Amino acid sequence: MRMYDIIKDKRDGKRLSDEQIDFAVKGFTCGDIPDYQMSAFAMAVWFRGMDAKETARLTHAMCNSGDTVDLSLFGDKTVDKHSTGGVGDKTSVILLPIVAACGGICAKMSGRGLGHTGGTIDKLESFPGYQTELSTERFLDQVSDIGLALVGQSGNLTPADKKLYALRDVTATVDSTALIASSIMSKKLAAGAHSIVLDVKMGSGAFVKTVDEARELAKTMVDIGKSLGRQVCAVITDMDTPLGYSVGNALEIKEAIEVLHGGGPLDLRNVCTELACRMLELSLKIDEKEALKKVRGAIESGAAFDKLCQWIERQGSDAKYAKDPSCLPAAKNIIEVISDRSGYICRMDAESIGICASMLGAGRTVKDAPIDHAAGIVMNAKTGDFVNSGDVVAYLHTNTEDYAQVSKKYLQSLKFSSKPPKALPLIIDIIK
Amino acid sequence: MRMYDIIKDKRDGKRLSDEQIDFAVKGFTCGDIPDYQMSAFAMAVWFRGMDAKETARLTHAMCNSGDTVDLSLFGDKTVDKHSTGGVGDKTSVILLPIVAACGGICAKMSGRGLGHTGGTIDKLESFPGYQTELSTERFLDQVSDIGLALVGQSGNLTPADKKLYALRDVTATVDSTALIASSIMSKKLAAGAHSIVLDVKMGSGAFVKTVDEARELAKTMVDIGKSLGRQVCAVITDMDTPLGYSVGNALEIKEAIEVLHGGGPLDLRNVCTELACRMLELSLKIDEKEALKKVRGAIESGAAFDKLCQWIERQGSDAKYAKDPSCLPAAKNIIEVISDRSGYICRMDAESIGICASMLGAGRTVKDAPIDHAAGIVMNAKTGDFVNSGDVVAYLHTNTEDYAQVSKKYLQSLKFSSKPPKALPLIIDIIK
Repeated sequence: MRMYDIIKDKRDGKRLSDEQIDFAVKGFTCGDIPDYQMSAFAMAVWFRGMDAKETARLTHAMCNSGDTVDLSLFGDKTVDKHSTGGVGDKTSVILLPIVAACGGICAKMSGRGLGHTGGTIDKLESFPGYQTELSTERFLDQVSDIGLALVGQSGNLTPADKKLYALRDVTATVDSTALIASSIMSKKLAAGAHSIVLDVKMGSGAFVKTVDEARELAKTMVDIGKSLGRQVCAVITDMDTPLGYSVGNALEIKEAIEVLHGGGPLDLRNVCTELACRMLELSLKIDEKEALKKVRGAIESGAAFDKLCQWIERQGSDAKYAKDPSCLPAAKNIIEVISDRSGYICRMDAESIGICASMLGAGRTVKDAPIDHAAGIVMNAKTGDFVNSGDVVAYLHTNTEDYAQVSKKYLQSLKFSSKPPKALPLIIDIIK
Repeated sequence: MRMYDIIKDKRDGKRLSDEQIDFAVKGFTCGDIPDYQMSAFAMAVWFRGMDAKETARLTHAMCNSGDTVDLSLFGDKTVDKHSTGGVGDKTSVILLPIVAACGGICAKMSGRGLGHTGGTIDKLESFPGYQTELSTERFLDQVSDIGLALVGQSGNLTPADKKLYALRDVTATVDSTALIASSIMSKKLAAGAHSIVLDVKMGSGAFVKTVDEARELAKTMVDIGKSLGRQVCAVITDMDTPLGYSVGNALEIKEAIEVLHGGGPLDLRNVCTELACRMLELSLKIDEKEALKKVRGAIESGAAFDKLCQWIERQGSDAKYAKDPSCLPAAKNIIEVISDRSGYICRMDAESIGICASMLGAGRTVKDAPIDHAAGIVMNAKTGDFVNSGDVVAYLHTNTEDYAQVSKKYLQSLKFSSKPPKALPLIIDIIK
């Protein structure tokens, strides 16, 4: 078998066999197949796509290119969640305690952020002392004891995906449904959970911009998971507007705590309720109605919040930070952003708002760079709200003095109109 | 400027600017742009193509990526010929003496063969002592004195093309009209001739298989040359059947000598007359009728043959080999290939026949491997001929004893039918 023929077959629109896909992934992982052949192959896939069988095999091959996590000791109760990325997305911090409080099992790995804002690991590190590196034994013990743990990625998980992603990133082959879906799903499968709930974000702040693209990506990922023996469900959610009011690590933790207390912004509460129900349906094999009852119960009783406290204590922080969020890192300066226009906010550029938060110190543009957990933005008006010239539209939280440019950029992220915009549903579709 | 954006623009079907193309070629030549980006780019070009302006700029950039030959001392009389490659193509050995005998100027560089059979340089080395490496001074002096010289490629000509071709060869991106045309034309332009006649072969033994593909490639190359200030003409010729009866280096030289004496196979004579006329039209600015008269005169008077003798003597061989071709290298064994079928030969797989010649020792599969100048095939029946079972269809000339497999493969290269095949014109089209 030769990589040349595999590239040529894909280029010519032929279906690749399992053997061809395995050959390509194995050879690329060990270095026998050079980058220049793999990048030509990725471009051919960009143009021709892959069918469901090919995409599943690619996922399988990448999943098995390195270590995989064995969660079989928890049977089929383990459930993972993955978001395709958005601005102000703090759902994991809310969902895991709810699901664990209801009897589900969340043994999760998560990444650091690169780009707009921090990743879930960065957000959790706003709790002073939070440990992201646990030994396998401690990780599994914690999950057995309290039903959840969340650590950074460790071990040699999906090296083929890491290598391929790095190459796609510099060869304009990232935005291929087959390649995105197999990249995400290979990591989820390697992480070991039996069930997976996917939060596919769409809109200006997300990777996919249209409903059709989101549905295609969601369906592709659900099909991959099912064909490889997992339970999968995808929820397509709106990310035209950032989720909740806060963007930035400690600020988002505070907002997450509000939701666990039964408060917080409505959009965030609704998305979390939907995702938590889906996770419980798959994990506990219960119906939607029962799942909703359990989720509401866990919040109202305080069980979900208590689970958060147990969680962060077991991972090295102190429950006091959850009980009194004013102890969390806070910025020196809180700057008002004043609107110079009047009208209804008809559109917010979530990506641009993410960049504003990053400029204040909440994100990183270079791998492993330190971030400022206190920095970020608290919005005071969102899409659909009427604003008068002179009103405060947002508060910038920062430890730098260099915020004038950010204020300006934030205002440019808002589009105004004289009539209220048509409200879009937050939960756009469910793909099972 | 970033290579990433250039790849993405081409992927998305946008027109690249001159600056983008120059940036890509310069960066790739000096190593700033890695192979994996260039191969993804080549694949994007394979899918999207390039328009006339882009293709011309790519050619220009590759031509100027290294040394170029300065033939300005000969004014606008220099004329080059390029064949897109075929089996049994010995036309350069015939054309150069004819054109020089008529007053045209041929200062040509040629390559060695890789694949089926030898290149023109390999064929000329059948003349014992023929020197393929001349100093620039000796090369130009010879051209001034006798009107022609043919040497191997020297200097650092079109390094961008060499590097890109090597990469295309292993990434399934060879067969792109824009990339083939710019590769061929960049080398022709760097070689310095003011006029260029292209022999675009089509059919089973050639790179392009259909008339439409051949026309597209021919037109693309003619347009490139014109837009970069050269005179160009393309002749599309049939290569479904090997040209002439001989395949193999010294065997082809013998056939070329026959043509220069006014004999030889009709198809070869006709193609050479057509190409020689086109070369003279461009070189001497004369019309077709006058060109034809000159070509016929040069052969009938013996001037063209005399020019061959002068040529090989000036390049280190001896005219006796041309005057008495029985002195040329000859194989120990001449093996008859006997037909086991009766009928009209309706198709010959020229590529497969080329491989047969290579198996006998006439070609090389590894760069710089020695070849056997004596080895090859002399056909005894071609497309359109009626053959009886038991007839000799070809003679294998070889110094090996390992020819049984070649006989079998040769017979498999022939397709028979009960009716004579429809004759195709040899000269299919002229693109000016």
